[in-house]
Amino acid sequence: MTPEAREETVLEAVQRRRELVNDAIDADLPIGDPERLYEASRYLLEAGGKRLRPAILLLTAEALLDVPLLGEDYREFPTLVEGEPPIDLMKAAVSVEVIQSFTLIHDDIMDQDEMRRGVQSVHVEYDPETAILAGDTLYSKAFEIMIAAGAPSARSMDALDTLASTCTRICEGQSLDLEFETRPTVGTDEYLDMVDRKTAVLYAASASIPAILLGADEHTRNALEEYGHAVGKAFQIHDDILDLIVSSDDLGKQRGSDLVEGKQTIVTHHAREQGVDVDGLITGDDPDAVSQEAIDEAVAVLEEAGSIDYGRTLAREYVEEGKEYLQVLPDNDARARLEQVADYLIERGY
Amino acid sequence: MTPEAREETVLEAVQRRRELVNDAIDADLPIGDPERLYEASRYLLEAGGKRLRPAILLLTAEALLDVPLLGEDYREFPTLVEGEPPIDLMKAAVSVEVIQSFTLIHDDIMDQDEMRRGVQSVHVEYDPETAILAGDTLYSKAFEIMIAAGAPSARSMDALDTLASTCTRICEGQSLDLEFETRPTVGTDEYLDMVDRKTAVLYAASASIPAILLGADEHTRNALEEYGHAVGKAFQIHDDILDLIVSSDDLGKQRGSDLVEGKQTIVTHHAREQGVDVDGLITGDDPDAVSQEAIDEAVAVLEEAGSIDYGRTLAREYVEEGKEYLQVLPDNDARARLEQVADYLIERGY
Repeated sequence: MTPEAREETVLEAVQRRRELVNDAIDADLPIGDPERLYEASRYLLEAGGKRLRPAILLLTAEALLDVPLLGEDYREFPTLVEGEPPIDLMKAAVSVEVIQSFTLIHDDIMDQDEMRRGVQSVHVEYDPETAILAGDTLYSKAFEIMIAAGAPSARSMDALDTLASTCTRICEGQSLDLEFETRPTVGTDEYLDMVDRKTAVLYAASASIPAILLGADEHTRNALEEYGHAVGKAFQIHDDILDLIVSSDDLGKQRGSDLVEGKQTIVTHHAREQGVDVDGLITGDDPDAVSQEAIDEAVAVLEEAGSIDYGRTLAREYVEEGKEYLQVLPDNDARARLEQVADYLIERGY
Repeated sequence: MTPEAREETVLEAVQRRRELVNDAIDADLPIGDPERLYEASRYLLEAGGKRLRPAILLLTAEALLDVPLLGEDYREFPTLVEGEPPIDLMKAAVSVEVIQSFTLIHDDIMDQDEMRRGVQSVHVEYDPETAILAGDTLYSKAFEIMIAAGAPSARSMDALDTLASTCTRICEGQSLDLEFETRPTVGTDEYLDMVDRKTAVLYAASASIPAILLGADEHTRNALEEYGHAVGKAFQIHDDILDLIVSSDDLGKQRGSDLVEGKQTIVTHHAREQGVDVDGLITGDDPDAVSQEAIDEAVAVLEEAGSIDYGRTLAREYVEEGKEYLQVLPDNDARARLEQVADYLIERGY
C-alpha cells in the first residue's frame, strides 16, 4: 500500500471513530457548574484533535475480540470472558483523551505556548488560574469516566492503576523535558526515556487498557503495552520533526517553537554530536520575534547535518518494532488498521 | 470537658496518629526520579500540617470496627466482613492527605499566596512550573496509593469513585471561590455551597472512605459523609475567622490575606448585610504592603458589626449537626474522639 493510500484508509478508520468519540465526549463530559470551569475544560477538546489514542484503544478492542470493524456498539461492548455483561468501552476511550487534554492544558502553561490546535491555549483564552483548574477537573473526570466504563471491578481497578501510574509517568516526563531545557546537552538514552514517559506511556495505556478491560491474558496485554511504547516514541520523534518543517498554519502553533524554547529533541541531539552549534542557530527567546527566514536557515543546517533524517530513521525503526508486537493479536482488519495507524503516526503531515 | 482539656485529648489523639501518618507518607511517597519533582511534591507535606483528615479517617475506622484506640495495626486493618483479609488502611489515610496537599499547592499558585505552613509556597520555593507538576504528581499518586490499600476490588472502586468525584467538587469549589472575588456580593447559600465543595467534601471523603473500605452499610456511610460535610464547613468558617484574628507567625502565612485579596467569606458577607463597606476596609492589593494596624482596624469594624460572632455561631451549629451524625457509630472511645475533633476544628487557635 502506498503511503497515500494508507493515509486515506487510516484517516477513514480514525475519522469514523473520531465522530463517535466526539459525541461521547459531549455526553460523558457535560457542562456542569460552574459553567465557565467546564467550558474551559472542554475548550481544547472541542478545538479539534485527531483522537488517535481513542482510535487505538477502540481498534485494539475490536482486534482482540476479532469482530468486523465497527461491528459492535462501543457502548455495549462484549468482553472476552463468556457470560459477562458488556462494558461501555467508549468511556475508556474518552478517558484517555481527557487525560491527554489535561496534560496539554498544563503543559501549555508551563511551556508558555500560546497556540494549540489553531486556537489560543486555555490559559490565554481564559486565564492561568482557570487553566490550572480546568486541567485538574479533567484529571479527576478521566478517573470518574473510566470507572463508569463498568468493567468487572478487579479489571477496572487494574485499568485505573494503569491510568494513575501513566499520569505519574507523564508528570515525570514533562519534568525531565523542562529540566533538559536548562542543560547544555542530553544523551540519546535520556531523551528517549523522557519521551517514553512524557508521550509514549499514554499510547501504551491506550493499547493495553482495552486488553485489561476485556480480560485478555497478561502476555497479550504486555505486548500491546510495548506496541504503545514503541509507536508513542515514534509519534513524539515525528512531532519534533514536524515542529521544524511544517508551516505554522498546518501545525496550529508557531513553527520552530521548540528550537526557540531550547527544547532538547533527538534532532538537536544528533546535530550537536555532528558539531552543530545548536544554541547559536536561533537568537532571542520570543517565538513571535523570530523570522520565518531565520527558522528556515536553522532547519537547513539541521537538514545538512543529517539530523532530520536521523530522526526519521529512528522513528521508522520504532514503528517497525511496534508493529511486530501486534502479532499477538488475531489476524483481522482491526489489527491491520493498528499497523497502518503506526505507519501513519510518522507519515502524517501535521 | 473544658475546651482546654478537650484540646489536650484531641491533640494527643491527632498527634499519635500524625506520627504514624508521617512515617507512612515517607514510605508510600518515596523520592522517585526526577528527584527534584518528588522533592517538590513532598515539600509541603514535610513542612507540617496537623493531618486532621487522616486522623478522622483512622478514628472513623476504629470506631466502626469498635476496637480500642490504636488497638489494630493500620497497615493490616481488619474489615467488618468476616473472613476477609486485612487491608492497608493507612494508605487510604495517606491518600486523602496527598490530595489535600495537591490542592494546597495549586491553590497557592492561583491565589498567589507566598507562604504556607510557615514556609514558602511550592511555586516560590521552586517555580510555578514545578509547582503545577508537583500537584499533578500528587494527584495521580493519591489514586495509586488508594488502590494499593488492597480492599476487595468492588469496594476499592467505590472508594476511588468517591476520591475522584471529591477532587472534581474541590475544583468546582475553588473555581467558585475565584469567581466570587470578582463579584460585589455573594449570598450565604452560594458561599456555603462553595465552602462545601472546596473544603468540606474532603472531610466527607475522609469519614466515608473508611466505611466504604471496611464494608459498612450504606446508611452508616451516608451518615459519616454528612458528618464530614458539616464539620468541614465549620472548619472552613473557622479558618476564615482565624485569617482575621491570628498572628501571621501562628498562621504560617500573612494575617488578613483573605481581606486584602477580596475573598468572600461568611464574615464579610454578614458585614455587608450590616451595611459595612467591606471593600473599603483595606486599600491596596498587596498583602505585604498593608500594615498590621490597618488590618487591626478592619477586624475591629467586623467585630463591632457582630460578623465574627456570627461566623463563630454558624460554625458551632455545623459542629453540633456533625456530631449528631456520629450516633450511627458504636459508642466507643474512637467515636468520642471524633466528637472532640469536631469541637477542636472550631476551637483551635491556628
